[in-house]
Formats: sequence, C-alpha cells, structure tokens
Amino acid sequence: MTPPIVAFTTDFGDLDGYVAQMKGVVLSAVPTATLVDVTHRVPPQDVVRAAGVLEDVVEAFPPGTVHVAVVDPGVGTQRPIVAVESVGQRFVAPDNGVLSHVVERHGAKLVVECTEPEFWRADVSHTFHGRDVMSPLAAHWVAGTDPRRFGVVRDDLSVRLPPSQPVVDESSVRGRVMWADHFGNLITNVRIDDLPVEPPGCRVTLGDGTRVPVHATYGTAEPGSVLALIGSSGRLEVAVNGGSAAERFAWSRESETTV
Amino acid sequence: MTPPIVAFTTDFGDLDGYVAQMKGVVLSAVPTATLVDVTHRVPPQDVVRAAGVLEDVVEAFPPGTVHVAVVDPGVGTQRPIVAVESVGQRFVAPDNGVLSHVVERHGAKLVVECTEPEFWRADVSHTFHGRDVMSPLAAHWVAGTDPRRFGVVRDDLSVRLPPSQPVVDESSVRGRVMWADHFGNLITNVRIDDLPVEPPGCRVTLGDGTRVPVHATYGTAEPGSVLALIGSSGRLEVAVNGGSAAERFAWSRESETTV
Amino acid sequence: MTPPIVAFTTDFGDLDGYVAQMKGVVLSAVPTATLVDVTHRVPPQDVVRAAGVLEDVVEAFPPGTVHVAVVDPGVGTQRPIVAVESVGQRFVAPDNGVLSHVVERHGAKLVVECTEPEFWRADVSHTFHGRDVMSPLAAHWVAGTDPRRFGVVRDDLSVRLPPSQPVVDESSVRGRVMWADHFGNLITNVRIDDLPVEPPGCRVTLGDGTRVPVHATYGTAEPGSVLALIGSSGRLEVAVNGGSAAERFAWSRESETTV
Repeated sequence: MTPPIVAFTTDFGDLDGYVAQMKGVVLSAVPTATLVDVTHRVPPQDVVRAAGVLEDVVEAFPPGTVHVAVVDPGVGTQRPIVAVESVGQRFVAPDNGVLSHVVERHGAKLVVECTEPEFWRADVSHTFHGRDVMSPLAAHWVAGTDPRRFGVVRDDLSVRLPPSQPVVDESSVRGRVMWADHFGNLITNVRIDDLPVEPPGCRVTLGDGTRVPVHATYGTAEPGSVLALIGSSGRLEVAVNGGSAAERFAWSRESETTV
Repeated sequence: MTPPIVAFTTDFGDLDGYVAQMKGVVLSAVPTATLVDVTHRVPPQDVVRAAGVLEDVVEAFPPGTVHVAVVDPGVGTQRPIVAVESVGQRFVAPDNGVLSHVVERHGAKLVVECTEPEFWRADVSHTFHGRDVMSPLAAHWVAGTDPRRFGVVRDDLSVRLPPSQPVVDESSVRGRVMWADHFGNLITNVRIDDLPVEPPGCRVTLGDGTRVPVHATYGTAEPGSVLALIGSSGRLEVAVNGGSAAERFAWSRESETTV
Repeated sequence: MTPPIVAFTTDFGDLDGYVAQMKGVVLSAVPTATLVDVTHRVPPQDVVRAAGVLEDVVEAFPPGTVHVAVVDPGVGTQRPIVAVESVGQRFVAPDNGVLSHVVERHGAKLVVECTEPEFWRADVSHTFHGRDVMSPLAAHWVAGTDPRRFGVVRDDLSVRLPPSQPVVDESSVRGRVMWADHFGNLITNVRIDDLPVEPPGCRVTLGDGTRVPVHATYGTAEPGSVLALIGSSGRLEVAVNGGSAAERFAWSRESETTV
C-alpha cells in the first residue's frame, strides 16, 4: 500500500500558524499521515523558485507522495486548482506554473481541474485555499479517493512558465542563474545532461566575463576561491569554497552563465 | 481512538536543539506520537502573539490534539503550569495568559494546575520546563492519563490577557493591530463577526487617518496598492497587494484601525 | 521493538529542498519512520556548533534513535563517513569531529567506517552525501541492518575536536563561550559538574572583567540585568533577563568565562 505521505512547499514562512493549519486539516482527515516540509521559505509569490524546488526534490520521494504546493498570488481569483500525476507522484497546486517544471521534464499522466466542492472544507475563505481547498484534496487523495472525482479531466496545465532549459549549441551552453541557495551557491538552469563534455573538460564564464574553473566538489578548490561544479540536483552551480558566491557576485534571474 | 498528536508553539526559534529535546521527550514516552510544529518563531516572550496564534490554529486541528505552548518568561519562578481542555482540544502551558484567547472565545471545560511531579521528568531544570514538565505531561495525556491526576482542578486560569476583542458601537468597530505576519500583512483583533455589515460595504481607517478600501482578496486590488480584507482566520487585516504593509506603515500594538 | 526515529542535524538551512530530499530517501525505504528536525540552522560548516548541539540533545531521545549529522565541508573528498553507537543511540556522520563531543562524554560502543556502497543510493553525487550515503545508511539501520555490514569496524573516530571541557583548578573554572543561542544567551563549555560549589555560591567573571551574579533562573534577576545561570543542558550561560547577552557583549569562541 502507498504510505500516506503529504509534502508541503509554500511561501508561508515560519512566523505564523498557516502551515500548521494545513497540517491540522490533513491530520483531521487522515490521522496516520506522515507530513514533510519541503520548504516554506520560497520568497513570497516566487512561482519560479517553487517550481524549481519541486523539480529538484521529487526524485527523492517515494511513489504516491502527495505534494501540496502553495505559492498562490492569485488566491481568491478565478485561477483553477489542479490535481496532477507525474513521475509516479501526485501534486495539488494552483494552475499558475508552479508545477510546470516537473511536467516539462516528466510529462503529466493526469491533470484534473478541481471544481467539486464536496472535497473541500465546508467554508472556503477568499485568502487561504491552501488550507480550505488544497489540503482537503490532498487528504482525500492519500486516503484513496480517485482524483478524477475532484473535477474535470484536462489535457494539460493551462499556465506554463518559460522553459527552464538553457540554450544549447554545438560548442556552448548558455544558461541563467535561477536562485541562490542557503550557502550562497548560485544555482543555474544548466544540467549535466545539457553539457557537451563531462564537467572537468569544460569552462564556465559568468555574465560579467569572469572565468570560473570547474571542479568535482567544493573541497578540491582553494579556500575562498570561486568554482563551478555540478551540484546535488545535477545542476551547474557557481560556488565559493567556504564562502558565498551570492555575496561575491551581483546576480539576478537574468544573469547569464556560459559553458 | 484519538490519534496521539502533539503540537508545539514556542519562542525557541530554530537555531538550537531546544524544540528537538521536547520532541525527544514525547517520543521516548509515546513513540507513535505525531508531532506538529505550529511555530517556534513567536518573538521572544511575546505571550500576546502566542495566544493569538493558538486562537487562530486550534480550529484546524483534530479533537484531542495536545498543544504544548512554551512562551514562558517566568520559567523557574512560582507561576503554575496548567492543563486545559477547551474547544475539544487539550493544552499544556504556563498559566501566564498564553491560553487566555482560546479560553476567552471557547470557554474551558477543565483547568488543572499541574502540581504532581510524578508526571514530570525525574530531574527538573530551573530553565526548561517545556522539556522537563510540559512535554512529559503532554505525553501522559496523549497516552490516556486522566488529566485530573496531574494536580489540582481549578475554576479558571489565574492570568488573563486584556480581552482581544475590539470596541464595537452602532456604526463603527475600533480595533488594534496585533502583529504583522510573514507577508507583512497587519493582522488586527477585528473579526468578521464584529462587523456591522459585510466587508465590501464598510470602510477602514488606519490610526494615521489613511483610508483603505476593502476587498475580498489580495488579487483584486491594484499591484502595490493598500487594501483591507478579512483574512484566513476571520480577522480584518491590512495588506499591500504584492508587497508588505508592515514596511509601508509604522505600526505597534497601539495602532488603531477603525471600521 | 525500537521505534524507527531518524533525527537530522545539518547546516542546510530552510530555504531549499535539501533536507526534504534526505527525508524522502529515508521514507522511500522506511515509510513508517518518524522524522525529527534537531536543527538545520547550524552556521555553515560550523562543526563545533553541531557537535555541541548533538551533545546537548541526545539525552532527551529514546534509545535506538538514529541521528544523521550533516555538517560536511569535506563532502566529495576522502573523509570517511562513520556509523557510531554511543549512549544507546546511533549516529551517521562524516568523521570530521561532529560526533566527538558525544563520544568524549559517553564513549563509543561501536565505530564503523562506511565503505560498502551496497547500502548507499545507486548514484552518489560529489556534493550531497547527506542524501546519497548518510540517509540511506540511516534507513538501513532503523530497518534493522547490522551496522557492521556497512563497512570496516574501527577502534575510534579519526578526527576529534579540541576537548570541550574547561580548565578546572582548586578555586576556579576557566571556560569559553561556545555559541549564542536563539535568545542571545551565551552558552559556555562549563558544566554544573565542573563547578567546585553549587551555583549560588560562586562568582562568574567575563573575559572583559565584568562580574556577573549567579541566579537559579532568568526571572529572579532584575529586568535588563546580566546574570549567569546553569541552563537547561547543564551548561553555565550568561544571559540578560528579557534581553540578549549576545547583543550586550562582544564575544567569540575565544571569550573566557571564569567561575
């Protein structure tokens, strides 16, 4: 039997009781559920970042995990909420692009627009569909309800983010910085499969012209020096050994990285 | 059977192992317990904020949940620790007002002053009753011990915070800002039930005279504009669509909001 | 039967999905595991702090708990990963000193250098052994695998941090500040057992010559005044009642505290 695991990815932070309310709703319906925090520190309303986090974590979770992704600037407006099956896992999220990186890479086996209020809380607020709509749907789904009953089966997501892939030609790969992680490593959209040769055989140039040597791991570079490497999710990242690349370099989501 | 859920609300932050020690104590006694973090980011010793968070989250949790609330500036002094039943749930906390908003709204079915050391850890420190007294009591309670055995049944809490209700007259409701949430929304003590008419039919004025239009949700206001709305816990809040009202306005717990 | 509890201590922060990937790996193998966060806010690469946090929390956890400690600046280099039994609990960590305070106090019943890849993930990255090596080992261990099968039994850890004990002579104990906790309390390496007399009978002098009165708990000192006390883990700490000693005093890990 699929274990009832519900994983949460939100921009709710950890100051308030918002996440706890979602968990309480799931536990009220499925007391044996195992609840996992992916992160609640997605920058407010940063759908791109949430899409990238989900893309990076899904591979580690067991089949059947239900991911609830609540980065939802359109809450209370007409944007739909969808239930999606992809890569053996299940997702409940607003149809605002937050699932588009997962679906871009792995395809979607099922997309349901969730229109049936019988699977929601009795009272639905205008501002917190994470608690009132998405968490109850997740609870029904881990408890075994057929997701087709949640609403209307659709062909696809209606909102897709710009593709997360870099521009690849014969001799170079031109990507972008997507975000800085907790260590200040600059994480790009270039993946190991995009590279023409294995990492030690290629060169990385940052948008400002800085050339960066490529290493296999942090500890083989001089302390304090800049390096590029393939990080833990298979993405090219720019790091400072023992320091923070995000502090060393000005960066934005427009910052180019050429390999 | 009531599932053994223990939920923690503290001002311990996430730097240290304090919360983990409380969880370890509960799991040592009840290995099957489900542990939920409400928040550990209550500002240090801010009993009012913790009381409000508890008031807002209890409704989402299943009956029988044991809430451990440790915002406890008087730890090691003579302030009692109480076990309280209210709104179908259970609470273990110092008797310093942290439970008073829950009890003000829902009443208390049972209040026990916890005086019996047999339900505590063998060695009780002077500085960490969350681990040494409250977590063991929570573990005993979810494991089925009758809370009357924890000590002496009392009529009521001995410390109550000033009432959290606003001043209501025929044509206006005068409330206060209680806190800013993670998104910078200013959360007030005015609830939807306090309002004479439904939200779109009323006007909100901040303490500095700023008039704020009332919306049903964030996304219907112009980006960057100020709005008031009924938030997810039924409280009136002042928000900036896509921004932070806490950064836009100077505020304190004295800041008035008139509807 | 030992309950399958896995507790995580890392410097990964809470911005990214790194911790969630470790949890997903454990749940993929042991869906019934109970997962506990000790802290993910160890300052990046601060092995001493992580060693101290582990030393302080282990006593509260049930026997058989598997602690995964990932503060690992040498990831991808030749530093070994070890599986250790100590104080009735189990530890999986790099052999970089992070376990040395636990072992210094409690001894090690078993130390295994984990060399057998059959207990790791199929693909091991160069940068995230927490997910690819340590979490799978933790899952195998809570599921009942004999840890001797993980690799080669050794006599001891190969890296030990400088001893965490203070210098004790007849009339004084000379210790150091180890870290500031969430409340700004300065936590030292002086423990209650190191003191020649019970706390109220001794005097504390900070490195800058400031004399600090010793109290039993925070609430017995004047608001805003400096005090020393034995904190919740049995360590001497310097606090400001209702404030932050870390903000009041300049401190580093060289700061002396004499009792």
